[in-house]
Amino acid sequence: MLSKNYSKNVNARSAIRELFEYSKARAAEIGAENVFDFSIGNPSVPSPECIFEAAEDILENEDPVKTHGYPSAEGIPAVRKAIAEELNGRFGTDYTEKNIFMTIGAAAAVTLCIRAVSDPGVGDEIITFAPYFPEYGVYARSAGVKLNVIKPEIESFQIDFDELEKALSEHTRAVLINSPNNPSGAVYSEETIKKLAALLLEKQKEFGHSIYIISDEPYREIVFKGFSVPYVPHYYDNTLVCYSYSKAMSIPGERIGYVAFTDRCEDADIILRVLGAAARDLAYVGVPSLYQEVIGRTTGATADLSVYQTNKDILYKGLIDAGYFCVEPGGTFYAFPRSLEPDAVAFCEKAKKFELVLVPGDGFGCPGHFRIAFCQPTGKVERSIEKFRLLAEAYGK
Amino acid sequence: MLSKNYSKNVNARSAIRELFEYSKARAAEIGAENVFDFSIGNPSVPSPECIFEAAEDILENEDPVKTHGYPSAEGIPAVRKAIAEELNGRFGTDYTEKNIFMTIGAAAAVTLCIRAVSDPGVGDEIITFAPYFPEYGVYARSAGVKLNVIKPEIESFQIDFDELEKALSEHTRAVLINSPNNPSGAVYSEETIKKLAALLLEKQKEFGHSIYIISDEPYREIVFKGFSVPYVPHYYDNTLVCYSYSKAMSIPGERIGYVAFTDRCEDADIILRVLGAAARDLAYVGVPSLYQEVIGRTTGATADLSVYQTNKDILYKGLIDAGYFCVEPGGTFYAFPRSLEPDAVAFCEKAKKFELVLVPGDGFGCPGHFRIAFCQPTGKVERSIEKFRLLAEAYGK
Repeated sequence: MLSKNYSKNVNARSAIRELFEYSKARAAEIGAENVFDFSIGNPSVPSPECIFEAAEDILENEDPVKTHGYPSAEGIPAVRKAIAEELNGRFGTDYTEKNIFMTIGAAAAVTLCIRAVSDPGVGDEIITFAPYFPEYGVYARSAGVKLNVIKPEIESFQIDFDELEKALSEHTRAVLINSPNNPSGAVYSEETIKKLAALLLEKQKEFGHSIYIISDEPYREIVFKGFSVPYVPHYYDNTLVCYSYSKAMSIPGERIGYVAFTDRCEDADIILRVLGAAARDLAYVGVPSLYQEVIGRTTGATADLSVYQTNKDILYKGLIDAGYFCVEPGGTFYAFPRSLEPDAVAFCEKAKKFELVLVPGDGFGCPGHFRIAFCQPTGKVERSIEKFRLLAEAYGK
Repeated sequence: MLSKNYSKNVNARSAIRELFEYSKARAAEIGAENVFDFSIGNPSVPSPECIFEAAEDILENEDPVKTHGYPSAEGIPAVRKAIAEELNGRFGTDYTEKNIFMTIGAAAAVTLCIRAVSDPGVGDEIITFAPYFPEYGVYARSAGVKLNVIKPEIESFQIDFDELEKALSEHTRAVLINSPNNPSGAVYSEETIKKLAALLLEKQKEFGHSIYIISDEPYREIVFKGFSVPYVPHYYDNTLVCYSYSKAMSIPGERIGYVAFTDRCEDADIILRVLGAAARDLAYVGVPSLYQEVIGRTTGATADLSVYQTNKDILYKGLIDAGYFCVEPGGTFYAFPRSLEPDAVAFCEKAKKFELVLVPGDGFGCPGHFRIAFCQPTGKVERSIEKFRLLAEAYGK
């Protein structure tokens, strides 16, 4: 007799998982090169050479007991210091190792931040914006707080401030943003961040308590020409930055990320320990030690991310030319066009006839849209344009 | 305004952490070689060479995108298969990859098992036995279940079955055992495991629902001459084995472990998915990928663990000769003698005068005892005997 809680949904298949299985079966039938599987958001480029060099050098030359030893809960001080200095060089911040808490990827960072700013079972709320990464819902529920999802602003995927203002209440503990965004690829403009900061400052005063911004930034390094990602702590003191090296370094399997906060953040003096207490509840123990050391030596380097720019240019132009409506992705490796019928699930089903494997926006809280993960070889993206065109034609475009 | 839940205790220092700080300060005063710090249970021997060879070979010769890519939630199938086959060779089991769920160390394994067999807020209980690893209390509370701690059987650190029988009730979801044991070093005999299995079988019938054994076995490979560790699934079908490579391979920082269960375990067909659902709640995403692959190639190898046997022999004899009562450790790198006054905290304070840094048993649910973590160079263990003797003399022994 297992947990009722965890047993009840074991037979429910996730939409993305089903697509993965479909795609695999279809590839066996007609060859992988003929299936345009845009369902999975895994980095498609190798890690930078410095990652391999650093790992091998540490394995060969450092004390093995130390290399593979327990790191402290908040992370290795020298690694946190290296990250702090790298960020200071880029953003003009004044971080030290006391402002950095290492995490097992951005998923852990976001989970710990949600728990660090809220309490379970007392009506606390975290606000986020559709379209959004569906795991946010899992993390909030598991933390015993409500995820209040603001409906999408589908003309630009910026923020609908009227809706946000209505949703903010004395229950709001944090606003969780994700820019560059999965699944839309949208980047919040400086104007958006400034308006958000101003509104939250006003609401902090009105409610008499702090409202944090949890800024989930795993795609910060994948930004396209003509776009830039404002550094949120410059605009709002109570910001917890959640970062992961998964996408920038192409090391999603190694689970290395961090939370960063400035000294101007409220309760900055105890945030490390509060995050540590939350991590202890989740049995995290510590972040894998070899790759922490690797990151300590390489932070700031990235994989060759230029393929994502190339793919985005080809795909975006191809979609627009074929008659799709799509907000131009400012970053990430996702595009999120409107489906050509209101039911995105039906649309994605129809797309399979053209060997296009796409994810309906419904799971991201944004029906009527679909996600294209274009972290694929450029040749495949190029060949897919004809398929998208034929799909549009089937809808009379 | 941070979480009340996690902020309230941030200024409480853990006893072990305080000892660590004390020891560091004392080492600065009189030299590290003169401080006998037996407080921290970190492996003291290097990882086996095969770990380094496997890591370097994978880094140099495998597809980097795959090496560092996302593993699936339950782990890499080929790695789970390698572990299954290794276990089958040793224990005559019939595991396949479908019986193995990879975890971020044993801490995660135990946490996931607690959650997999219980539901929060409905009175579910997990039973364990003092002395016990204090994080069990954190994992249970965080899962919303009660940890019911059976008082220690201090003559042998086996199980007090009268107390266990009284504690078992319809609320009991699992019995959590840890043999070889941290902190006592005790190994449950075959007789103990047989009696435990018989009692639980009877109680399963009486209450009409399964009671799992969660067998936390990170020290399985560190077993001393004259002792052997019964393989619990041979005696009891509803067993979830929690393992970690941290101690056997000296890689605690890499966070690699697993849960194993046989096909005879109740609900075996959905356990993987139930564990996966629990892991999703905790934002685990997956187990670090490079070291999963490393373990897939090396599982079954161990570091040179002979130093722990040597240290145990020297220390145990020294303690007995000096007049301490101590159950002979059958494994691990811990001894857990009785303190020479009832208040183990006062005793450990007094021990500092002899430069011995020891952990009071109170935190392990076993007052009147103290833990010696003898994962230290043998020379230091040898030199400590005189210190233990002087300490005993100070108590008139």
